[in-house]
Amino acid sequence: MAQAQSPFRTAEQKQEEREAKRMALLRAAVRMFNQRGFHATSLDEVAASLGVSKPTVYHYLGNKEQVLVECLTLGLDQLFAAADEAKSENGTGLERLRKFLRRYAEINMDDFGRCVILSGDETLSAEGAQKLRAMKRRVDHAMRALILEGVADGSIAPTDPKIMAFTLAGAINWPARWYNRDGSVSPEDMALKIVDSLTTGLAPR
Amino acid sequence: MAQAQSPFRTAEQKQEEREAKRMALLRAAVRMFNQRGFHATSLDEVAASLGVSKPTVYHYLGNKEQVLVECLTLGLDQLFAAADEAKSENGTGLERLRKFLRRYAEINMDDFGRCVILSGDETLSAEGAQKLRAMKRRVDHAMRALILEGVADGSIAPTDPKIMAFTLAGAINWPARWYNRDGSVSPEDMALKIVDSLTTGLAPR
Repeated sequence: MAQAQSPFRTAEQKQEEREAKRMALLRAAVRMFNQRGFHATSLDEVAASLGVSKPTVYHYLGNKEQVLVECLTLGLDQLFAAADEAKSENGTGLERLRKFLRRYAEINMDDFGRCVILSGDETLSAEGAQKLRAMKRRVDHAMRALILEGVADGSIAPTDPKIMAFTLAGAINWPARWYNRDGSVSPEDMALKIVDSLTTGLAPR
Repeated sequence: MAQAQSPFRTAEQKQEEREAKRMALLRAAVRMFNQRGFHATSLDEVAASLGVSKPTVYHYLGNKEQVLVECLTLGLDQLFAAADEAKSENGTGLERLRKFLRRYAEINMDDFGRCVILSGDETLSAEGAQKLRAMKRRVDHAMRALILEGVADGSIAPTDPKIMAFTLAGAINWPARWYNRDGSVSPEDMALKIVDSLTTGLAPR
């Protein structure tokens, strides 16, 4: 208590403050990348949008490619967490796949997840693009594993897991391009509706 | 016959030759846009890939944005034709929607269709982006109309046509990003498998 009222900040407080500044800068950068595209965004503008200088951005985040890599890593970490969660839960393969797909869709409607979808390989250096592809493959493999478990327990109709995973991923990734957060449907509702459509299909049952 | 053997080309032959050159240049440009991205492609390289000079490219196609607009127009014209065809055919709403989706997926795996999917709004000028959005809306509305017809005739389960159209479009657009023409599955087979997945859904019937 006494420490909290001191004008001198503790190491922990300094660390928290530093992290809050980093996240504010990343959030401003990712929104600009998503809106204007990576090439059309300058770190000068990112800095200006928060009323700080460009060297401040460099200090906290590094150069523009490093900023993008950090944004992509944050988005992919959310997807990995969703996959791990779905994997470790109880329920049929279909139930766990549905849970993963819903969470995946929600992430894709949020800033860092959108950035993962909107950033083509050609945005990054050859090395960065290779790393990004490997991380995306991990998400794809998690989805295929859940499909196979569902087919094995009879909750999912027999299917080619590779093509089914691409079909699902496409439908789930698409909102990153068109979803409007200011619209009337929440990301959670939108995710549920998309996953329901994919579960039951077009043909009446 | 005599005319065909003359060393002087007819107006018609000249026109055909001009059109063949234009298409060869457009095909070379669109492949480079799709592979490297619009920003990373220069018309110099497009010219070099066909062994011609940059002024030749300008003569036939105009500047880089004009080349892109022409590529997008060719891709969208294929989609419009597919929509018109599906609309005028016989069959249930589901049958006609399936036909449209299969053709749509095939187009998205070909050069000009891929370009439509891979080109974000931010690639174009404000005016160009607005035109592109209007053309994409026309494709979306054609899909919604087919969904509604299927729901009306009972061949498609009751659904929100807007969200269903986005779900289908996402799954159908995705191959533009990953499909490998040199792989073991033809675009026609891939399109059929994706559309089958979307028709029957994940859950067993």
